[in-house]
Amino acid sequence: MNAPYDRVALIGLGLIAGSMALAMRRAGMTAEIVGTARSAETRAAAERRSFCDRVVVTAAEAVANADLVVLAVPVGAMAAVAAEIGPHLMPGATVTDVGSVKRAVIDDVAPHIPPGVHFIPGHPLAGTERSGPDSGFAELFDNRFCLLIDEGADPQALTRLADFWKALGAQVETMDADHHDRVLAVTSHTPHLIAYTMVGVADDLRRVTDSEVIRYSAAGFRDFTRIAASDPTMWRDVFLNNREATLEILGRFTEELFALQRAIRKGDGDHLHAYFTRTRAIRRGIVEAGQDTDAPDFGRGGRS
Amino acid sequence: MNAPYDRVALIGLGLIAGSMALAMRRAGMTAEIVGTARSAETRAAAERRSFCDRVVVTAAEAVANADLVVLAVPVGAMAAVAAEIGPHLMPGATVTDVGSVKRAVIDDVAPHIPPGVHFIPGHPLAGTERSGPDSGFAELFDNRFCLLIDEGADPQALTRLADFWKALGAQVETMDADHHDRVLAVTSHTPHLIAYTMVGVADDLRRVTDSEVIRYSAAGFRDFTRIAASDPTMWRDVFLNNREATLEILGRFTEELFALQRAIRKGDGDHLHAYFTRTRAIRRGIVEAGQDTDAPDFGRGGRS
Repeated sequence: MNAPYDRVALIGLGLIAGSMALAMRRAGMTAEIVGTARSAETRAAAERRSFCDRVVVTAAEAVANADLVVLAVPVGAMAAVAAEIGPHLMPGATVTDVGSVKRAVIDDVAPHIPPGVHFIPGHPLAGTERSGPDSGFAELFDNRFCLLIDEGADPQALTRLADFWKALGAQVETMDADHHDRVLAVTSHTPHLIAYTMVGVADDLRRVTDSEVIRYSAAGFRDFTRIAASDPTMWRDVFLNNREATLEILGRFTEELFALQRAIRKGDGDHLHAYFTRTRAIRRGIVEAGQDTDAPDFGRGGRS
Repeated sequence: MNAPYDRVALIGLGLIAGSMALAMRRAGMTAEIVGTARSAETRAAAERRSFCDRVVVTAAEAVANADLVVLAVPVGAMAAVAAEIGPHLMPGATVTDVGSVKRAVIDDVAPHIPPGVHFIPGHPLAGTERSGPDSGFAELFDNRFCLLIDEGADPQALTRLADFWKALGAQVETMDADHHDRVLAVTSHTPHLIAYTMVGVADDLRRVTDSEVIRYSAAGFRDFTRIAASDPTMWRDVFLNNREATLEILGRFTEELFALQRAIRKGDGDHLHAYFTRTRAIRRGIVEAGQDTDAPDFGRGGRS
């Protein structure tokens, strides 16, 4: 059994950091939680929610004597934060992050980590379309995967961090960074870009159809609007930092979409039916694997 | 106040018809419900669920003396059913349907409706990814829109049908068929095609990533798999029968997607951020309009 952490520094105080603090308290962890955020408004909101023991102004200050440092800022801000905290990290401390891409974060952060400090990148697969310090809740990570990058990780530091995430409710898996980025390009990044695009098209058409696009968005589109309500800064950084994998999946996507579009134009019902039958099986795989932990939501789904 | 119906014929016994029968009973309607389906297996399942008073073998038989006839078959099957029932419809009866496209259904059905019978096309915006007679439930239409096509409709017959749907829990709106098809192409048909495509791409990649695409589908993609699990026959018919509007929206969609793809390739973060900020506002519009009747589902949405 690994020792729990004594002092945890949360850099960035949004949905993820706030939920981590609340989940730590729920788990009965006694670690001091020190939080910081660049914006005074965010720091004030975190003070009001009081999920940190102390909210400080700079990241350098926050990491002093912390044995766990969590970088919970948008991926594009990681390099600057790492440069700031590097000289102030305690020997033996673990630095982790919660960014949605991993190779770019490693490239940005690793050069600033001094010898004797462990850097173990991470990514909890959890979230909502809400953001900011008021959006966190202790249950966010329950039964969700947290992916930790094990490339060159110190085994003991890795196990300690994994235990921490398990105590927060997550199911921990390890993989390398490139593999992570490829898998997430399919399961998350490209779907988000597509949802953003579809909602943007609908917005263009709003004047044509008055507000009916919103009014009658019961099926299909409503899920897209929820996905496309996610934090713009976070997602800008995801696409800029997982560019190759996302562009590759997008290329495959448009290829397939054009084939279906041609089938519609030509009236090729057999092609459409065969395609739609194949995709149905994937859903069954998810449900049977017990990975669909959400309650069935009648009246929202597939038909219209 | 319009008289309720005395005998309702349900042609097709899937999710929608089954839910209609259960919602009629919940509303205390005393109408005799006569159901039929082409497949003996479906008829047997409907008998077991016993949501009809009688299950008969042919559509012609089902409509005898019915003052409301509901065509609840895939859009591609409407013409054949209409041809079969036309000569057997009772004078003064109302025929409606629940298809997801309306112009094509009118073209297929109207020529078979004899004088003295009212044809009022309809479309309840409700459903799940489940299908078949065992998937129905009485609450399916609660607080959902039911769109009725008022082109040339007899006002009294229209009001009577609207009252019927309201008693089933729905909120009724009227519009013309072309407008319906344009709005639904944006809010439902194109999003479904896109979800099917994305899930198909992921399926192709399954061997590359083992089953991780399913395992780590927590954010974004999971919504797509649910949408893409919808009934293949129904959706094939939707795309074949709302071809023009769907292709037009698809054209706009790929145009926008290419612009975003170029922004990713060029590293144009400002373009991405501005786009993602704009789409976020649409979600707020839906939530503020009180049209998001589903409970907030933490842990499923936008982030990863």
